[in-house]
Formats: sequence, structure tokens, C-alpha cells
Amino acid sequence: MGRVPLQAGSDELTKLEGIFTPLLVPLDERGRIDEAELRRFVDWLIKRGVHGLYPNGSTGEFTRFTAEERRRIVQVVAEQARGRVPILAGAAEANVQETLAACEAYAGMGARAVAIVAPFYYKLNAESVYAYFAEIARNSPIDLTLYNIPMFASPIDVPTIRRLASEFGRVIGIKDSSGDLAFMMRMIAQVRPLRPDFCFLTGWEAVLVPMMMVGCDGGTHASSNAVPEVTRRMYELCRAGNYAEAMTWQYRILELFDAMLYPFEFPDGFRAAAELRGFRFGRSRQPQTAAQRTDREALSTVLQCILADFALVNPPAAGCAPRTGQIQADKLEQIVQQVMRELKKRGVV
Amino acid sequence: MGRVPLQAGSDELTKLEGIFTPLLVPLDERGRIDEAELRRFVDWLIKRGVHGLYPNGSTGEFTRFTAEERRRIVQVVAEQARGRVPILAGAAEANVQETLAACEAYAGMGARAVAIVAPFYYKLNAESVYAYFAEIARNSPIDLTLYNIPMFASPIDVPTIRRLASEFGRVIGIKDSSGDLAFMMRMIAQVRPLRPDFCFLTGWEAVLVPMMMVGCDGGTHASSNAVPEVTRRMYELCRAGNYAEAMTWQYRILELFDAMLYPFEFPDGFRAAAELRGFRFGRSRQPQTAAQRTDREALSTVLQCILADFALVNPPAAGCAPRTGQIQADKLEQIVQQVMRELKKRGVV
Amino acid sequence: MGRVPLQAGSDELTKLEGIFTPLLVPLDERGRIDEAELRRFVDWLIKRGVHGLYPNGSTGEFTRFTAEERRRIVQVVAEQARGRVPILAGAAEANVQETLAACEAYAGMGARAVAIVAPFYYKLNAESVYAYFAEIARNSPIDLTLYNIPMFASPIDVPTIRRLASEFGRVIGIKDSSGDLAFMMRMIAQVRPLRPDFCFLTGWEAVLVPMMMVGCDGGTHASSNAVPEVTRRMYELCRAGNYAEAMTWQYRILELFDAMLYPFEFPDGFRAAAELRGFRFGRSRQPQTAAQRTDREALSTVLQCILADFALVNPPAAGCAPRTGQIQADKLEQIVQQVMRELKKRGVV
Amino acid sequence: MGRVPLQAGSDELTKLEGIFTPLLVPLDERGRIDEAELRRFVDWLIKRGVHGLYPNGSTGEFTRFTAEERRRIVQVVAEQARGRVPILAGAAEANVQETLAACEAYAGMGARAVAIVAPFYYKLNAESVYAYFAEIARNSPIDLTLYNIPMFASPIDVPTIRRLASEFGRVIGIKDSSGDLAFMMRMIAQVRPLRPDFCFLTGWEAVLVPMMMVGCDGGTHASSNAVPEVTRRMYELCRAGNYAEAMTWQYRILELFDAMLYPFEFPDGFRAAAELRGFRFGRSRQPQTAAQRTDREALSTVLQCILADFALVNPPAAGCAPRTGQIQADKLEQIVQQVMRELKKRGVV
Repeated sequence: MGRVPLQAGSDELTKLEGIFTPLLVPLDERGRIDEAELRRFVDWLIKRGVHGLYPNGSTGEFTRFTAEERRRIVQVVAEQARGRVPILAGAAEANVQETLAACEAYAGMGARAVAIVAPFYYKLNAESVYAYFAEIARNSPIDLTLYNIPMFASPIDVPTIRRLASEFGRVIGIKDSSGDLAFMMRMIAQVRPLRPDFCFLTGWEAVLVPMMMVGCDGGTHASSNAVPEVTRRMYELCRAGNYAEAMTWQYRILELFDAMLYPFEFPDGFRAAAELRGFRFGRSRQPQTAAQRTDREALSTVLQCILADFALVNPPAAGCAPRTGQIQADKLEQIVQQVMRELKKRGVV
Repeated sequence: MGRVPLQAGSDELTKLEGIFTPLLVPLDERGRIDEAELRRFVDWLIKRGVHGLYPNGSTGEFTRFTAEERRRIVQVVAEQARGRVPILAGAAEANVQETLAACEAYAGMGARAVAIVAPFYYKLNAESVYAYFAEIARNSPIDLTLYNIPMFASPIDVPTIRRLASEFGRVIGIKDSSGDLAFMMRMIAQVRPLRPDFCFLTGWEAVLVPMMMVGCDGGTHASSNAVPEVTRRMYELCRAGNYAEAMTWQYRILELFDAMLYPFEFPDGFRAAAELRGFRFGRSRQPQTAAQRTDREALSTVLQCILADFALVNPPAAGCAPRTGQIQADKLEQIVQQVMRELKKRGVV
Repeated sequence: MGRVPLQAGSDELTKLEGIFTPLLVPLDERGRIDEAELRRFVDWLIKRGVHGLYPNGSTGEFTRFTAEERRRIVQVVAEQARGRVPILAGAAEANVQETLAACEAYAGMGARAVAIVAPFYYKLNAESVYAYFAEIARNSPIDLTLYNIPMFASPIDVPTIRRLASEFGRVIGIKDSSGDLAFMMRMIAQVRPLRPDFCFLTGWEAVLVPMMMVGCDGGTHASSNAVPEVTRRMYELCRAGNYAEAMTWQYRILELFDAMLYPFEFPDGFRAAAELRGFRFGRSRQPQTAAQRTDREALSTVLQCILADFALVNPPAAGCAPRTGQIQADKLEQIVQQVMRELKKRGVV
Repeated sequence: MGRVPLQAGSDELTKLEGIFTPLLVPLDERGRIDEAELRRFVDWLIKRGVHGLYPNGSTGEFTRFTAEERRRIVQVVAEQARGRVPILAGAAEANVQETLAACEAYAGMGARAVAIVAPFYYKLNAESVYAYFAEIARNSPIDLTLYNIPMFASPIDVPTIRRLASEFGRVIGIKDSSGDLAFMMRMIAQVRPLRPDFCFLTGWEAVLVPMMMVGCDGGTHASSNAVPEVTRRMYELCRAGNYAEAMTWQYRILELFDAMLYPFEFPDGFRAAAELRGFRFGRSRQPQTAAQRTDREALSTVLQCILADFALVNPPAAGCAPRTGQIQADKLEQIVQQVMRELKKRGVV
């Protein structure tokens, strides 16, 4: 098949850039979407400076909602955003036909573009990944971004990205969550000359500032659910070329990111941190054992201490033990400190 | 939480054993489920001797159907089977609540048990995998089997299997597709003493006979879509203790399995082979490029040659080149042979 | 390069088969090879029925000795064996030239053949692995076996094995430590028709009996350092076609193997078990922390309990706690039991 | 064991920083070290501005030389350098005792420090990796750097690095070849506060500039064998804070690096490029097939075209086809272009 000329509309629209929040979804005590809280969360994120919203991402646990719920989430987010920031709507469904129906629906809701994760469960080869995205790009009524997250889904390699970018004007960018700087540079080197409008977003905030330095246009960051002010600030410092100051924030966000990511099942640590900002997200749809719930409380206290250093929340009443950056040790130290405080209060020690 | 006593019904029911077919789903030219062909396929499989049917397995591409379609598939299969063989229905849905609703539905359709794949997309740790299955087992109205397929989903480790088996009578078995003999033996060593009724099924027909020798109760094999007579025969020879003859079939099924598995995207090679038995499965819901479709035709000819050796289909009109067991080489040789035959027919050579 | 005709000598020699022991090397308190103990160990192994000796294997920690020490080890073993059993000498050195010099030396010492591990450190592709073995096979004065251990070295794939087997009579077999039954069957299916004399040895005793059933000629098993009687018995039962009894031993050896392999750094668990049979192996050349040495003692008690069940050693004085098959739990239980016994003795409890 | 106070000498010595070249070793036509060419190469590298020399690195194929040859390489390099630049000598040998003997020898030759790769072949856990380095650090007469290269050797994790850095003044730095920016940041965040003198070198030039931005002190780069001027320039631009210009070089070195790394067996592509600068390295000690040698020639022409763009060598006589950045395609295009030129010359087309 020949090269498809760029669609009329695409180049009139603004390029995707800045920090997009892959929104966590608040649930009520019965496990249903808590729409009122979701609307309140959307308003808060926009006021705190995120550049865009990305419902139905991995952080939004899209696989744990039904097809109907996924649509409802985008609708609520789009309605509440009221055009203040662009919506990038996760639209991957069970198959191409269902995905295209979702694209249609999200276009109708005013989304700027959709994000399509590479096929998952089955691990497909490059030719099949191409075939999948090509079929969607050929028929989608809305711009789309590729979503490469090789730890969860079939990888999208550089030649495939180049092939899709060169053939389909509808494919306007890629979000990459590999965190691999060299991979990002290879994509940019291969695609930007052909498609200066193509946007490159990183999903790995551990290296957001280096990613910006090599030419990224921004990112979709789970951390922005908890600290939208910080990710915004990092982006602006990079845009202003002030990498030295941006790097001091990068080291701080790395500590927070690691503390939200590794000791929890994803995205529960990000949920725990966002709760500390004043939102109720409810229990995850992934069941937890009693042991896990207890552990979550201790870990949450460590997160509170980190966020308190950012002056975004108050420190825990029991105070904060010095942190080592080794989260399991910090968690234990925090527990010890609380116990000691309690014992002192009771006059035991 | 304490050990749950075995549910009343469970031990009255027969243990799952034998070869269960994870059915491919025929689609019509518009990509919809072809129910008439599916019914014809169910009848054929039962007549050819499969011991049970397993709709909504990985071979059945359960992730590429909608929740409604998955129910319809089980309904059609159960109706058509009319109790002649037991149904093990794949019931994993987006979350525990949806999964339990599916369990309820499949119980109502007369399924013997449901199979629940470990959580996928997100890679969960052992505690979370336990929590997930425990929540389902606690509430399911029907017996369930665990489904371990570490290449696609979160792994289920031996201590977790033991823990679930010892706590929940509803958990009646496991299907393991790792193909790891030592892993199977570890499961059997850990669980069988506690739960003699617990069934162990392998999903890796490349080693079905050795698996039977170490104590497996059978398997769910994609290959049984194409050669149900052969997998049945292998099972019976093992049951009779005739491993020597069973092994000669094992080597032959290995050649076929490798030829269906590696050169294709799963499960397209199994579909190609089942088509040679006289069924129309239609195009996969995973799009294919023109290059892939051409390749499929040449590969299909190699499959036809292998099946012809089993005397289950006629060889291709052009005859069969000698096979090396190296599928890509065999595919090329087959193409060369066809071209030569055509040229001779036209008097060119 | 054309097929090399089989060397004169090869087919007159007996095919390698049975259980070869990859010998642990006893060290004295200064870390030097303890030759007297090594000779005593060789005698004991031969008397206990091993079919061959394999110095300089992975179990023999060949990489932790100098080139000179590796030669000395083979010399001592060969001298002591005095032709009672064949010697398969590990001969991989820093490069092809050094490897060929070792081959020459081992031929002179009367080794039956040498074993050459695939290139390690660098991970080479199939063509390079072929080039490496071809260069050695072309120039070696002694028969050689390929050694595939993909967890430690570059993998040797089936087409490469077939290519080497078909071109070089000097290549007389392969030892495979992957433990993958299907891989073993693929090798046998591809190579045995061309080279009926080619021997297939497994290095994964967790599945020795199934490997024998699919056609293996034997194995090189670290476990035979500790329980040569058992691996011999398993081999003989398989040769006699008595798989049912062989399997009961297979399950028992699996428990022992797992207890020697997973909680220790390889091969320290095998060393700990062999010490229980009455040999002094000294401290590993890989340094251990104090914590590791303490842990080793508790684990060693668990090994003693397992070996006592085989009636090969006495149980520990403190008795054996019931085992769960989960080694870490068993280790703790064993420690608890010892402490309780001590406390009782002192009248504390 | 308690914390060891920093050795007297260490803090008087300069911190390791800048670009260290892991030297390729020239061989003569008989495969022996070509000392004259090695000396010429050392002089050339120093004149072209490398900050230090690193014999016996992975690029130097240390595993393919004998223990004696490794010593001779360091001796020749140290003699020839005559103190103009510091020597970081790779000193890993078969075991701790041999390694310490090498440390002693290299100290005597005037090396600034030794580099010790983590244990390889066996994959060790963190405690064992600690024990290994601790034993060496406790006894070494010379400063040492850790060398983390997880694709080839046991990984060294952040807590282990912190532990070694806090206990042993002798451990003065780490070279990390993972290329993972976040990992580098975690190391720096954990270790620099305790040990401001500790040096962090990256071995992944694909991301040298981002690594410098996050705080690295330099790198040991295989590419500096071929383009020492370029890696020097990148380092200096980073030191001057001119990241914008440094990034333009980073993109160019990435193209070259990928072309030297991926289509060849490591380090043969780096050797091919260094040969284009006027040195004779001879044939690799890893044998190559005829097909590989032919392939190397075509790939070498692509490297020549890339180096010609840097104005470091002349373009090939046949000219350079436009590059796509996809090396296999570029190689074919280059071959086509040469054939066409030849045909034209002969008047065929």
C-alpha cells in the first residue's frame, strides 16, 4: 500500500506536548466509579497545571474496567475538562472493530487524540504489530498515538514506528514507557526528519529531564496524579533550558517515584500518594490480602514524609524518621518510630 | 482466614481428566462468530474422541472477543455438547466482579468447571495472585481451575498453588502451560498429598507423554483442534502404561506442534491445520499483512504434508518435498517444488 | 567446507552413556587442591557405581581454577581412575589455541573425550558458536562433546548441533543442562538419524527419568557427587524399562536436588551434601559472608534429614522436623526444633 | 566488620574522570599480541586526547587472553603511557587469590587503580557479590573500581554498591555498562553523600551526554578506540555545560555506536572501525566463518561512510549511499552501489 497523505485536519491541530496525567479512577465503597470524586480530581489536576488528561492509561487500570466503564470514564473526564486541556483517550479494546468504535465515540466526546497500546497477552512480532496499528490508522476518525510499554505488551520497534509514521498521517505520536534513553533517541533520529509534527512522550518520569534534553515533547506520568505541580515545574524548567535546576527536581521525583512504584503493586503506590493530596480513590479492583493492606499503611507513611519534604502535605503526626532511600528499611524505621512515640506517650519508655 | 471445608458438590463430581480441546472459534466473512460452523466443529471433536471442551482458552483467543461474545461461545458449545463431554469454560473477565458474573452464567449453562487465567497485563507478585484467586474461589458458585501460562500472564508459583488448594475446595485443579516437567512434579509433590482429587493438566503437548508419566491427569491441547485422534491415542497409551508406543506418537506430534507454533502468530498455525480437516475458521481478528497471508499459504502446505503422514488428510497435489524438521527451510523447499511442477506442466523445464 | 568423514578411531570406541559425575574438587585449608582427598573421592565414586567421571565441569568450578590447576585436576582423576571408568574432561580454555593444547594434554592422559562449554561471558550468535566448535573439532586430537548450558553460556541451538554433528566425526555428543524435554527431543529427532553414535546427556537430574524415556543416553549430574547410588539406580531402572519405580526415585531426587540447588550459591549445596557422605571439600573459592556461613549450617541439617531418608547418612542428633518441601520454611523449622531440644535439655522448657 | 577508615593514599590521588579507552589489543598474523602496534595505538590515543587507558576491559577481550598475556598487556600499555595518562587495569582473574596477585602486579607497574568485573559464568546473588568484592578490597594494595555489566556478569545492585563504598576506602568508583540512567541516578543519590570522592563512570556511550548531565564523572567507551576525538569533545562540552552542542554529537555517536555494536559480535565492529583509523588489529581470537568475514567487509564500508561524515577518514572509493540508520538495509544498499559502479566501469550498464 502506498503512503497515505496527511489528513487535512491533523496539521491544524496543536502538537501534543507537556505533561499528560494518566488519571487514577476513584471508586466508591461498592467498587463503582465515583464520578463526583473523579470530576473533583479533574478540576484539581487542571488547576495544578497539568497540560492534558489521559484517561484509560495503564495507571488508570483500563484492563480492570468493562468496555462500558471505559467509555463512561472518558465521557466524565471530557465533560469536566470542558476544553481547558486536551484529552488523550486510551482506546484499546478487545479487537480492531471494537477499538474503532471506541475511537469514534471518543472523537464525538471531543478528545484530541486516542492512545492505543500495542497488542497484549499474546506477544506479537513486528509485522503483526504493524498490521494491527495500520488497520486502526487506516480507519480511525481521530488522530492516534502509539503506546509502547514492553514490560506489559508486545514491543513496538523502531522500524515499525518509522513505517507507521511515514504511512499514516493519523499516527501523530508515540508514548514510550521503556525508560530507555537510547531507544528514544533512535526513534527521534528515525522519525523526526520525516514527520516534524510527530510527538514523543515518555512514560518514565525517573528520567523525564534527560528525556526532555534528548528531544522529547513531554510525558504521561503516573506521578502527576500525586504531584502535578512538580512534574509541571520540571517540564517548564526543561523548556527554559534550565537543566541544572530541573535535575535537582529530577533527583527528588526519582525518590518519590521509586517509593510509589517498587514496594506496591502498580498503580497502588500512586493511588496511596494521591490520597494524601485529599482524594478518596477507594479500594483497588485487584483484591489485597490483610497483610498487603497493613503493609500499605506503613508504606503510605513513608510517602507522606517524602511529600512533606515537597511541602505539599503535612508530615505524619509521629514525625518522620531520616530516610535512607531504601524503601523497605525506611518503612521499618517509620514503624519503629511510631511505636516508640506511642510507648512514650503511654509512659512505657 | 481459616481453611474452608470442601464444598458439598465437588467430590461427587468426576475429576477432570483426559484431553480437553481449547476450541478455535470459527468466524464468518464479516468477522462474527460462525455459530453453525462452531456447532459442526463441536460435534466433530466429540466424535473424534476428545474428553472435554474448553471454550475461551488462549487458543480460543478469549481476549479478542467481547464479554458478550465470550458468553455466547460457551453457550453454543455447551448446548451443542449436550452433556456428551464436560465443559471447562474460560471465565476470566476484567475484574473479580465480572469474573464471578461469568462463573454464575457458566454454571447455569451446565459447565463442569471454569478455568481462570492468572491476572495479565500487570505482572503481579505471588501475594496478589493469591488474593485474586482466593476472592474468586470464596464466591464462585462453580468449581474452578487455575491457569498458569507464565509466557502471557502473571506466574502462579508452587507455594501459592498449595495455599489455594489447601484452603479452597472450589479450586479443583490447575492447567499449566509452562511445559516445565520439574515444575509439574513440584506441584504434584506439594499438592497431591493434601488433595488427591486435585487435577493437573498440561497445556504443552510437546511433552504430553512425559507429563503423563510424572503423574498428570491429561491436558488441554491446541493441537487437539487439528488432530484430536492423535492426542486421544497418546492419552490412552499412557493410561495403559504403554509409554514406548506413546513416545513414537510424541515425536510425531512434536514435529506438528513446532510447525503450527513457531512460524505463525499463535494460534494461527493451529487454525491453518484445523482448516485442513475441513472447517472454515475465517480470518483472524488480529490483522495480517499481505506478506503474512502469502507466507501462511506456503506454511499451510507444509502442515498438509505432515498431516498427510498421519493419514488424516491427502497430501497436496504437488506432492511433498522431504522434510528436514526445520520449518523455514521446508517451506522454501515446498515452494520450489511447486514452482518446478508448474513449469514442467507448462513444458518449460 | 564439505563433510568431514568420520575419524577412524571414533566408532571403535564405546559410546558415552550412563551417569558421569562432574566432580567437586576438595580444597585444603589454604585453598589448594587437596589431591589425597580427591583421589579418595574418585575411588568412592567408582565404587558407588558412577559410569564415568567428568572433571572441570560447572560443578567442578572450572572457572575458579587456573589453567595449570585444571590440568592437574584431570591428571589426578585420570591417574586414580586407572581406566576403571571413562574420563570426560572439561577442556574449555581462554581461546581456541589454549583449548586445543588442553585437548592434546587430556588425550595424553587417557581421557575418553573432552567436553567443551559454549563460549561464555560474551553472548555469541549461532554462527559464531558454530565457528568456535568447528575450529576446535577440525583440530582436536580427541573426541569432543558440546556442552549447552544456556543459563551460564551462549546457547547452542538445534540447527547448529545438527550442522556440527553432520560435519565433524570428532563431535560425538552433547551434554545439555537446560532441562527442557522438548529441546532434547528436537535434538534427538534432528541428529540421531544422521549419527546413531551421537550421545545425548542431560545435566538436569530433576528430570532424568523423563529424559531417559525420550531417548537420552544418560547424564552428568551434580547430585551424583552426593548420592551416586541413587543416580545409578535411576539409570538402571530406566534402562530396564521400569519407569514406574524409576519415577518414585525421581520424585525423591527432585526434593534433594531442589534443596541443594536453590537455597545455596551453586555448587555449594552439592558440596554440603557430599560432605555429609564423609568428605572434606574445604571452603569455596567464592568468598562467603558470616551470614552465609551460618545459613549454610542450618541448610546442611535439612540436607542431612533428606539424605537420612535415603538411609545414606544418619539423621542429625536433634532429629528431623517434618519437611514441607519448601526449603526456607524447613530450614527455620529445623532451627526451631534444635533450639527447643537444647532448651529442654537445660530444663528451660 | 566495622567501617574501614579511608586509606591514606586514596584521597591524595586524583579522582578518576574523563574518558578512559578500553583498549582493543592488536594481534599479529599468528594470533600473538602485536606489541609494537599496541604501543603505536597507545601513543595515538593519548595524542587524540583520551584521559586514561583501560587495558583488559570487555572491549579488550580479557577473557580470550591467558593470565600471562593479560599481565603483559598492562605492562606494555603502562610502559608506553609513561605516566601521561592514568591506567585503570582490568584485574579480574579466576579467583580472589589470583586477582590479588594481579592487583599487586599492576600496582607495581604504576596503574592508578584496578577494575574488577563482578563474578561471571555463575550468576551470584547480592550477598555473594558483596563477599567477593569485600575480600578483594580488604587485601588489595591498590585502589579498585567495581565493574557492573549485567548483560555479561552477575549484577551489582545499589545497596551492595553503597555497602562496599561505605566500608572500603579502597573502593573508589564504579563503572556501569547497563546504560540505565535511573540506575546511575540511584547510585549517585545513595553513594555520593557518603563518599564525595567516589567516581561514577558509564560504559554506554549511546547516552554519555545524559549520563554526564545526571552527574557522571566520565566513561570508559569502546567507541573511543575509533573516535577518541569525538568522545573527548563530548566530555568537554558537557563539562562546560554546553549540553545543546554536546547533544548534536550524542546523536552522531549513537549512529556510529549502533553500527559498530549490533551487526557484529562484540567487539568486532569497534575493531573494524579502529582499523579504518590506520591500525592493524589482526583476526579476532573468536573464529569466524567465511560468511561472517564477507559480511564484515560490507559492514566495514558502512562504518567508513559514517566516519567519513565525521571527517576522520576518507569515504570509500565507490562513494557512500544515503544512510537510513537501519544498518542491514544500509549494508545492502552499499553493496548494490559498489556492484553498479563496477558494472558501469566495465561498460555493462
